Amino acid sequence: MRVCVISPNTSKAFLEGQRRELVNMPHIKVVGITRGPESVECYYDDVLASPNIVELVQKAERDGFDAAVISCFFDPGLRAAREVVSIPVTAAGEASLLLACSLGNRIGVVTTVENSIPVIHHLVKGLGLESHVATVRASSLGVLELDSGENTVKALLKETLAAIKDEGSDVVVLGCTGMAETAAALQQRVRTAGFDVPIVDPLRAAIQWAEMMINLRLRHSRVSYPKPPVKIRTA
Amino acid sequence: MRVCVISPNTSKAFLEGQRRELVNMPHIKVVGITRGPESVECYYDDVLASPNIVELVQKAERDGFDAAVISCFFDPGLRAAREVVSIPVTAAGEASLLLACSLGNRIGVVTTVENSIPVIHHLVKGLGLESHVATVRASSLGVLELDSGENTVKALLKETLAAIKDEGSDVVVLGCTGMAETAAALQQRVRTAGFDVPIVDPLRAAIQWAEMMINLRLRHSRVSYPKPPVKIRTA
Amino acid sequence: MRVCVISPNTSKAFLEGQRRELVNMPHIKVVGITRGPESVECYYDDVLASPNIVELVQKAERDGFDAAVISCFFDPGLRAAREVVSIPVTAAGEASLLLACSLGNRIGVVTTVENSIPVIHHLVKGLGLESHVATVRASSLGVLELDSGENTVKALLKETLAAIKDEGSDVVVLGCTGMAETAAALQQRVRTAGFDVPIVDPLRAAIQWAEMMINLRLRHSRVSYPKPPVKIRTA
Amino acid sequence: MRVCVISPNTSKAFLEGQRRELVNMPHIKVVGITRGPESVECYYDDVLASPNIVELVQKAERDGFDAAVISCFFDPGLRAAREVVSIPVTAAGEASLLLACSLGNRIGVVTTVENSIPVIHHLVKGLGLESHVATVRASSLGVLELDSGENTVKALLKETLAAIKDEGSDVVVLGCTGMAETAAALQQRVRTAGFDVPIVDPLRAAIQWAEMMINLRLRHSRVSYPKPPVKIRTA
Amino acid sequence: MRVCVISPNTSKAFLEGQRRELVNMPHIKVVGITRGPESVECYYDDVLASPNIVELVQKAERDGFDAAVISCFFDPGLRAAREVVSIPVTAAGEASLLLACSLGNRIGVVTTVENSIPVIHHLVKGLGLESHVATVRASSLGVLELDSGENTVKALLKETLAAIKDEGSDVVVLGCTGMAETAAALQQRVRTAGFDVPIVDPLRAAIQWAEMMINLRLRHSRVSYPKPPVKIRTA
Amino acid sequence: MRVCVISPNTSKAFLEGQRRELVNMPHIKVVGITRGPESVECYYDDVLASPNIVELVQKAERDGFDAAVISCFFDPGLRAAREVVSIPVTAAGEASLLLACSLGNRIGVVTTVENSIPVIHHLVKGLGLESHVATVRASSLGVLELDSGENTVKALLKETLAAIKDEGSDVVVLGCTGMAETAAALQQRVRTAGFDVPIVDPLRAAIQWAEMMINLRLRHSRVSYPKPPVKIRTA
Repeated sequence: MRVCVISPNTSKAFLEGQRRELVNMPHIKVVGITRGPESVECYYDDVLASPNIVELVQKAERDGFDAAVISCFFDPGLRAAREVVSIPVTAAGEASLLLACSLGNRIGVVTTVENSIPVIHHLVKGLGLESHVATVRASSLGVLELDSGENTVKALLKETLAAIKDEGSDVVVLGCTGMAETAAALQQRVRTAGFDVPIVDPLRAAIQWAEMMINLRLRHSRVSYPKPPVKIRTA
Repeated sequence: MRVCVISPNTSKAFLEGQRRELVNMPHIKVVGITRGPESVECYYDDVLASPNIVELVQKAERDGFDAAVISCFFDPGLRAAREVVSIPVTAAGEASLLLACSLGNRIGVVTTVENSIPVIHHLVKGLGLESHVATVRASSLGVLELDSGENTVKALLKETLAAIKDEGSDVVVLGCTGMAETAAALQQRVRTAGFDVPIVDPLRAAIQWAEMMINLRLRHSRVSYPKPPVKIRTA
Repeated sequence: MRVCVISPNTSKAFLEGQRRELVNMPHIKVVGITRGPESVECYYDDVLASPNIVELVQKAERDGFDAAVISCFFDPGLRAAREVVSIPVTAAGEASLLLACSLGNRIGVVTTVENSIPVIHHLVKGLGLESHVATVRASSLGVLELDSGENTVKALLKETLAAIKDEGSDVVVLGCTGMAETAAALQQRVRTAGFDVPIVDPLRAAIQWAEMMINLRLRHSRVSYPKPPVKIRTA
Repeated sequence: MRVCVISPNTSKAFLEGQRRELVNMPHIKVVGITRGPESVECYYDDVLASPNIVELVQKAERDGFDAAVISCFFDPGLRAAREVVSIPVTAAGEASLLLACSLGNRIGVVTTVENSIPVIHHLVKGLGLESHVATVRASSLGVLELDSGENTVKALLKETLAAIKDEGSDVVVLGCTGMAETAAALQQRVRTAGFDVPIVDPLRAAIQWAEMMINLRLRHSRVSYPKPPVKIRTA
Repeated sequence: MRVCVISPNTSKAFLEGQRRELVNMPHIKVVGITRGPESVECYYDDVLASPNIVELVQKAERDGFDAAVISCFFDPGLRAAREVVSIPVTAAGEASLLLACSLGNRIGVVTTVENSIPVIHHLVKGLGLESHVATVRASSLGVLELDSGENTVKALLKETLAAIKDEGSDVVVLGCTGMAETAAALQQRVRTAGFDVPIVDPLRAAIQWAEMMINLRLRHSRVSYPKPPVKIRTA
Repeated sequence: MRVCVISPNTSKAFLEGQRRELVNMPHIKVVGITRGPESVECYYDDVLASPNIVELVQKAERDGFDAAVISCFFDPGLRAAREVVSIPVTAAGEASLLLACSLGNRIGVVTTVENSIPVIHHLVKGLGLESHVATVRASSLGVLELDSGENTVKALLKETLAAIKDEGSDVVVLGCTGMAETAAALQQRVRTAGFDVPIVDPLRAAIQWAEMMINLRLRHSRVSYPKPPVKIRTA
């Protein structure tokens, strides 16, 4: 089984971070786009990244990968990619939010900057999961500011506890794939604070989701994602 | 008042069609993207067209237009465009669907090819208007096949009557801006068939919507559409 | 183009206020009901005003107006009026709420007295826009207490800021047509307070909406609003 | 216990029919409005009837009745009446639809003329019961054409069976109080046709609902239905 | 008319309490399960109690009762019971929540322990009443700790006022049948605190609901609740 | 990794069928309840099976399994089981429906007997997935009649094609775990019939879901599923 993870931005540091955290999964290869935004934090970034992400999904299929994973919580290019390839394609937002639906009843999303909040609410609406999501909160850390250090953990912890205590969230999804390094630390702190609430890292969820689909030999419906009509498309 | 209408594809014929139908509105200028798909009929086309559309919206603001109108029912790039400019931006899908909500209770959308159906359902979900839309139907005519001839009218009429009679639609929105030339003919045929049901041409609706916003001195909320963070973005 | 605006109550002062604020629009005539409540602030007022409003809409059609606008946020008599006339009829609530849907994602309504709050929630439900409205708040000023003075602005500003800060509203609709004189002042204060959030005056929105329908030669669906059966109706 | 049932139209025959069918309930008095429409079949009729119905509810309270029942499926004046009196007020639409929610999962409404269909859909939306109602169908019999004869039963039976077989309704509510005389016959025919589906007569449901509220010493919330502000209201 | 009320747990004290409060209703008999949990406060209790409750409903039918009432807010076994008997079956949760829909717009539920909160939210979802319920709050009193003393009243009052003031509830339903003895006291305190908000005791509501169904000769739909297939079922 | 699959009925043949189809997964052990119904096809069966299923989940935890899977589409006992154990618990309905949400937009469920239809609709409501499910259809085959023969395939194919063609389903979930043996054959027939629509076997989905949770070290939230209060519970 070979899975291609697609880093959604042009940041070398972000790409290296993703590779580092998946280093123990030899069946996974991480590639990144080379044109577009250096991080994806708003609709504008989403629009600029998407064509390049779709291109990498197409390349992954040509290169024989069994599935492609878009490593971004906004799911940029996900639906377009499903139209153009026949391997399963998953993405961090859809996979982690559906997974969270089986863990609790009121999902809290804790993301990076405030610009992301309306994008994530719109994503949730498009997924038909509005009634499952209690709150979307921003830690005010930019995607490229995230690391595994104390500042990051503290900023995420603050919003996570607010999601739980003030908004009644009973499961928390991290709203960015760049937060994975701190997810374990965050889980521990939340437990220490007295809340037995699962913390979902969306990239890991999306990888597991892709593997589930490979194992079940399932793929997106061609009725929902028919092949695009043939026509002239210039880059 | 000067309004810039943006043709969402690279087709010269489509661009000329749009200019022809708006020729009596001298305050309107129609421009078209020069890279991307020759028509927008699926998610993949949407993704390829969007960055170029956003660029033209930015240019429209720099050129002093009072508003920009994205002439495509999928609203490609609409939310990204609102982030990057301060003039009102409207698009055919959002404007015509909201307008139709004041005309009847169950909207039927009649669009071009089958590939468009899931895209439009997803658009409707994202707009929070799922309970207002009774059906989305395809005439099986490609965007570039549409004209004002009898074949086009007949294909649209068939689906329009099905939307009304089989699905209980009481207002019909055409799901493509390339259908405007036949809207009036279609309206007449529908009345002749015994149904006093309004037919909404989405491009005209979006232009009127833009003018409404200019007249009211309103613009999208900066809380919903904050300015994107400054960062490196490569084309 | 001639538009008839219908003042929904018997207050002379309210009628004069509406005429004053529309004085620069010579194509608009403002008329008011002469029986019914002196202001519309609850279901009971709505019920008493509606028959008289419908009568004025019928008169407007007979007098050759191109559209009628019901100048009340409760939309009293709107649906009945659409049944009995063939010109477009709009009203402040429906038009401003649909317009606001294109400006932001979470509408806050700021209205007059507390009695209006359940009426507006019920209006929103009937429009199928429940998921778009974040909050309805009362300034505790009666309809006839509203003016352009500092007290009015302050009372509205307080609830507007609460709608934005406490309830996450990103667009604010004034829930009464008697608030128009202060809308511009309110918009400025909200910006000064650091929130780039649009403030929608519902009467102006409804007038623009009526003009949009005239320009597009559209009218409500006769399937949703069929002509009433002929029968004896005594006044 | 004394309950006042309010006939919502000026038809003497309708009033007598209601009295006849409730003749065995001596604690009930039926009164009817004397101005307004001779039957309630559209929004326009609703608007004309409502002020007169509210007046009769107020009179019922003054006359010492323990509850008032508005005998019309559109619930005309219900919310206004609750504002102005302190006795419980019920109506045929709300009571029968809520009752039906405990009998099955998909309610079918069978009403009189086609004009009533959009009014009933709007009523259902306002009650927040959209997801419970599968269909609203018209028998094409006017309110004043209804009797206990074979023609009425046949017309209702046809739509009732369509609601069950074509739309999956598992409980049927009659959408007019003038249908009560035939409800029992209809129930029998539906059973004979092989469907063990309850048929709800809305007037009987509303009377039982009123008695339930009297027995429980409950009344509508004053937070939802606050007393109207004191002001000048001219008839 | 004879109605069988089924106490959902094995507690003798609870059973006696229910009998005491219904002592003035000679047509009612209260019976209790003899195996299962001593109180129902979580999904696990619900699962353990349900088979025994269904058995008592079957016995009630055999014993000639006209209806059965499940005296538990979780409605344990309600749907199964409706499948196996032909007399009407009601339960405290469904009946009181539907009743409350006619009293106000935003229901607050005040229940016993925190474990009950997710169970009640799930019940509400299953009833399709999510948009009607504003909040579910726990008094932190166990089912068997409830009595008519001051401690119980105080604990319930605190959460009731929070439901009204903090969450905008305009009608309050007690989320346990063991609270009936204090409902009247609670209603008075809430009024004294300045809120004219109805307090619904769910057991009394369910009994009235059962009597309403008997009076109307109605019973659950056999399409929604068909008789179970014949098969081997071992206890 | 060790996973315990729980057969939800007392049928030996069903248990053997489940073991046979999972024979190549040595980390899985299948156990079955020994009291309760011989198949689960209605609410009544669900209620009788649930306590015994929960007991087996508790035993699985004591026996050191890493997760438990309830092999029934109704998810009997799922929520109760999560309260009483600390290992992940999944079930066929929840897992397969959430998985299907990522494969298409309109889920069709094809199940066994008609009795199951309302139970599955209620399950879907409780999961908050009503807007994702287009139809639930019965093949009229009892759970114990299912095999891998031609009759079973034909009956399932008929309803599957109806779900796709008549109801617009774009992904089909089999609504019983006893259908797994024919899922592959069914998938092939559907493709041959010209529909590239995924067919989801719910047991395999639930097993993969359990393994995903084990791999991610996730477990249900203790806020949604708190440990039950200590009390006397008699069997």
